[in-house]
Amino acid sequence: MPRDVFDEAEYERRVDRAKERLHEADLDAIVVSDPANMNYLTGYDGWSFYVHQAVVVTAERDEPVWVGREMDAGGARATTHLSEESILSYSDDHVHSPYDLHPMDYIAGVLEDLEVADGRIGLEMDAAYFTAKSYTRLQQNLPDAEFEDATLLVGWVRIKKSEAELEYMRQAARISENAMQAGIDAIGDGVPEYEAAAAIYEQLIRGTDEYGGDYPSIVPLMPSGDHTDTPHLTWTDRPFEDGDPVIIELSGCRHRYHSPLARTTFVGDPPEELEETADIVVEGIEAALDAVEPGVTCESVEKAWRDTIAQYGLEKEDRIGYSMGLGYPPDWGEHTASIRPGDETVLEENMTFHMIPGIWTEAVGMEISETFHVTSSGAETLADFPRKLFTA
Amino acid sequence: MPRDVFDEAEYERRVDRAKERLHEADLDAIVVSDPANMNYLTGYDGWSFYVHQAVVVTAERDEPVWVGREMDAGGARATTHLSEESILSYSDDHVHSPYDLHPMDYIAGVLEDLEVADGRIGLEMDAAYFTAKSYTRLQQNLPDAEFEDATLLVGWVRIKKSEAELEYMRQAARISENAMQAGIDAIGDGVPEYEAAAAIYEQLIRGTDEYGGDYPSIVPLMPSGDHTDTPHLTWTDRPFEDGDPVIIELSGCRHRYHSPLARTTFVGDPPEELEETADIVVEGIEAALDAVEPGVTCESVEKAWRDTIAQYGLEKEDRIGYSMGLGYPPDWGEHTASIRPGDETVLEENMTFHMIPGIWTEAVGMEISETFHVTSSGAETLADFPRKLFTA
Repeated sequence: MPRDVFDEAEYERRVDRAKERLHEADLDAIVVSDPANMNYLTGYDGWSFYVHQAVVVTAERDEPVWVGREMDAGGARATTHLSEESILSYSDDHVHSPYDLHPMDYIAGVLEDLEVADGRIGLEMDAAYFTAKSYTRLQQNLPDAEFEDATLLVGWVRIKKSEAELEYMRQAARISENAMQAGIDAIGDGVPEYEAAAAIYEQLIRGTDEYGGDYPSIVPLMPSGDHTDTPHLTWTDRPFEDGDPVIIELSGCRHRYHSPLARTTFVGDPPEELEETADIVVEGIEAALDAVEPGVTCESVEKAWRDTIAQYGLEKEDRIGYSMGLGYPPDWGEHTASIRPGDETVLEENMTFHMIPGIWTEAVGMEISETFHVTSSGAETLADFPRKLFTA
Repeated sequence: MPRDVFDEAEYERRVDRAKERLHEADLDAIVVSDPANMNYLTGYDGWSFYVHQAVVVTAERDEPVWVGREMDAGGARATTHLSEESILSYSDDHVHSPYDLHPMDYIAGVLEDLEVADGRIGLEMDAAYFTAKSYTRLQQNLPDAEFEDATLLVGWVRIKKSEAELEYMRQAARISENAMQAGIDAIGDGVPEYEAAAAIYEQLIRGTDEYGGDYPSIVPLMPSGDHTDTPHLTWTDRPFEDGDPVIIELSGCRHRYHSPLARTTFVGDPPEELEETADIVVEGIEAALDAVEPGVTCESVEKAWRDTIAQYGLEKEDRIGYSMGLGYPPDWGEHTASIRPGDETVLEENMTFHMIPGIWTEAVGMEISETFHVTSSGAETLADFPRKLFTA
């Protein structure tokens, strides 16, 4: 992500909002390990999250500090507006080290230099790349610090998007539409699953005539045949066969912003039950989208879906959506609000969600999804793609 | 990964070897969180690692136990040989939960049922996805357990490959060759970086005429122009320009097995310095490959590289390789042996490594890599692709 993705003022606003939450939580600093949160606060972008790294925000210091592996410091210079004194790096012998060195030893030193080592420090305790070992090494190095769980502190800042962020999500939606069409076109009797995946992936990266696509945080998912009830299986060498339902879930990505989309197609003549299920899912998703407006809760949106499908004797226990946008593997979700019973998050303008309800019966699985933006007047769906069962 | 990727006996051998290491470490059980380790022991394959999941191996029980999210249990049935009583799952309200529920609460209950709750339990303390929160929740739920760091226990089993694993790595190498050729062919003056990335990705998934490719654990990396010293940047909309060096690092993937490959190309007429650097890197990598044989140490292989480039007044501080094979995002490395000073791991037959030395001078960056298999007579490189500087 080059430095011109967002202007410097946008990052300053984000850091200011994170600092407000630091203040509210009475924290002196936060160690941000989630790569999406690191990107959000600084612009840092690189496939370096397989080693430990962090952005540290303190209540006192104007700029965040980026800390990572020496060979990635150049990436921080290339993709952030940070000044040179805010880019710190550890030597390569900390990586998968046989010398009892750990990157968190270095990061503990940075926290000392920032004069927060005896303060209250927020940690993203449940973020994918903040390991148990990272935590125990910080504890060992900083015996006077008081650590607090701040997993979602930045996530709750991220949930409301700026106009510039929404523009990248709309661009991602254009890519999603193109890739979905490529997938539906590629699927057919006798075509191996991987060929459809290749067509989708090629289009996800080729993007549109005006701009390319970034890698999505989740690969295209294409459960098919007997496996439409196992949503996280990926493609195999198996050829599609007449009679296969195929669910396609994918997302275009633009400067790490996503706009996921799911549709279901059928190889051959779909059974009547699947056609009927598609109609119910479409009716349910439209009822849920109609329920969206600033001031209502996430659970009330879910209820609109549930009440609709209940009329047909159907129920679904899983959540039907979640806030999302900026992301890195393994996930494009923000892990804050979910559209499900018990989630009393109140919708506000410029929040963005992926609504992905599905119905799985004994015979078939069916998913249709939309990414939507909460506007003053309701839900604006980002993609423009027919909501129906496709056939191949 | 369907169940026929490896036969059941291969998984039994792997579990037996893991149990030997449990015994050596005096552990009653291990909670395996790394998705590559979960796959290695059971065959489980799915993009579900963005939620907490585990495979539990105990000293006493024959079969490992898979524990994951309810909607992923079908994936475990589809991709493993495990019996139904060894597939356990938690309800969806544990996921990004607003109810103070955590998947590790459920997994703690599984450990109780397995009668190891008051025993010595190995945890993959530094594995991506085993979060600090996962650790503290296990501690809270199991006050009588004694936890030990077993991050690399399964990794040290994985380092030596079976013939069946090597065959998948060779298949991955065929895909790497095809994708590298597609990338080199696509790069040219005025071509946007994303178009080259799209061509590479399409080929990575399309694979070969005989079989398709799985998604690689790391996206194709293509630092170019001024950024060849920042190895983990990904593609942008920028068009390649005459005078750009471009490093391509990629890996084909087959049933989650990788065979990474890096080459450098140059848009236009390469400067003499880059040509000379390429010759030095090729000489150095060949010296290092020649040094490989069972019984020598990793550090002695690195020394062969370092001594060779030192003759030209060059030095490089980073490690030049690492053991690898099976993997999931964010990494295809096994995190055990590294080819670098101080690593005294003794090479044994059927270990596999990615050797990726690079030289970065003020003016240029240059990488050429090979994936190799340690045979009784030395290093067998898996890909067959010219070791030289390419031009576009």
